[in-house]
Amino acid sequence: MEVDYKKIKVIGFDADDTLWVNETYFRETEERFATLLENYETKNKVDQELFKMEIKNLDLYGYGIKGFVLSMIESALDLSQNKIPQETLVEILDLGKKMISQPVELLDGVKETLKTLSDKGYRLIVLTKGDLLDQERKLEKSGLSSYFHHVEVLSDKKESNYKNLLEHLEIDVDEFLMVGNSIKSDVIPLVNLGAKAVHIPFHTTWVHETVSAKEEQESDYLKLNSIKELIPLFN
Amino acid sequence: MEVDYKKIKVIGFDADDTLWVNETYFRETEERFATLLENYETKNKVDQELFKMEIKNLDLYGYGIKGFVLSMIESALDLSQNKIPQETLVEILDLGKKMISQPVELLDGVKETLKTLSDKGYRLIVLTKGDLLDQERKLEKSGLSSYFHHVEVLSDKKESNYKNLLEHLEIDVDEFLMVGNSIKSDVIPLVNLGAKAVHIPFHTTWVHETVSAKEEQESDYLKLNSIKELIPLFN
Repeated sequence: MEVDYKKIKVIGFDADDTLWVNETYFRETEERFATLLENYETKNKVDQELFKMEIKNLDLYGYGIKGFVLSMIESALDLSQNKIPQETLVEILDLGKKMISQPVELLDGVKETLKTLSDKGYRLIVLTKGDLLDQERKLEKSGLSSYFHHVEVLSDKKESNYKNLLEHLEIDVDEFLMVGNSIKSDVIPLVNLGAKAVHIPFHTTWVHETVSAKEEQESDYLKLNSIKELIPLFN
Repeated sequence: MEVDYKKIKVIGFDADDTLWVNETYFRETEERFATLLENYETKNKVDQELFKMEIKNLDLYGYGIKGFVLSMIESALDLSQNKIPQETLVEILDLGKKMISQPVELLDGVKETLKTLSDKGYRLIVLTKGDLLDQERKLEKSGLSSYFHHVEVLSDKKESNYKNLLEHLEIDVDEFLMVGNSIKSDVIPLVNLGAKAVHIPFHTTWVHETVSAKEEQESDYLKLNSIKELIPLFN
């Protein structure tokens, strides 16, 4: 696909699994959680039920680690019919604290790409969802703050969230490119708004972020294997 | 105190306990929590220990209901030496969900004050801390959204948070007035920055938000009994 990026002035980056590792920690925690519950249900069943619980609670808790921990606790009580030992619940709280305190691991090529694009005069912004404090903390730990003109933590990444934000920041959709690992959250809403989008898959995607093959095909965007491949697009 | 508000163009409002009731729900939930733990400790001890737990976890969890619920669960396990019945933990999760789903109860005079100031051409903004999703939801439920040019949820309300925000929104400190119920969060940081501040006490304040009499005296701000008393300041 030949796309003209000459008009682009502002590049928005998703953060989790685009700039740094995130989903991996959720997957690892889910593994630990399934092990803690192995006396009650199979790993597969625990996974499924935790996911259902997260979706059931999503409207109330939103995205982020704290809501995930609350859903793990509720699932553990539920799946064990309130038999789960209290000590195990302490372990689940600790799993959450460990996730929150995790060091930030940048993905390959992130720093050099941001530096190059920033040096070339592009205005770079971060558009992420999740917990405000968590995301601010991760950005600070990442050492990437200085590359960004603006950081926005959104409660969700639907078309309306992007529309309001671009208006608020006075960014013309023709001049905006979004870069992220989620087709559902980082690509489709932007393409629908008339902006450009680049998809850089991460090796694991939360099932809630997946879209049908049909939706994926119908959307018009560029797919890259690494964030470094952005650089030659802006020469 | 005679203060000249002629320069003011932008008025920032805290949300919880300034525009609508909030702290009351935390107090009520703490009451319920102490009752759930009455077999283990006195109400006074439970209150104290829960507060200590919240402060211990504040860096990790930040402000908001989800962190509060996680701290209640941790306190319940801790105070009962892991003897708390699992059913009680289910009740604690439910207390949190009830708090999140609580209808929004506007404080007296809020709507008419915002309408009047908005009609007079002041730019009104909301500056609140806490959970992003919770605050967005409350603002929507409040029916007040249309009065505000901008809503910002901050992870904390320190001087640096306000400084960055005013710069980002291109608001001159001389032209800014902040209105809120917390001297610590809504008044002192603004006065230190050279902006104006109005304190409207709410009948209950979280102890973490209280300041010493000395700090209170040394700070130069106006105290009002009701938000309605803002109106005559801008005639």
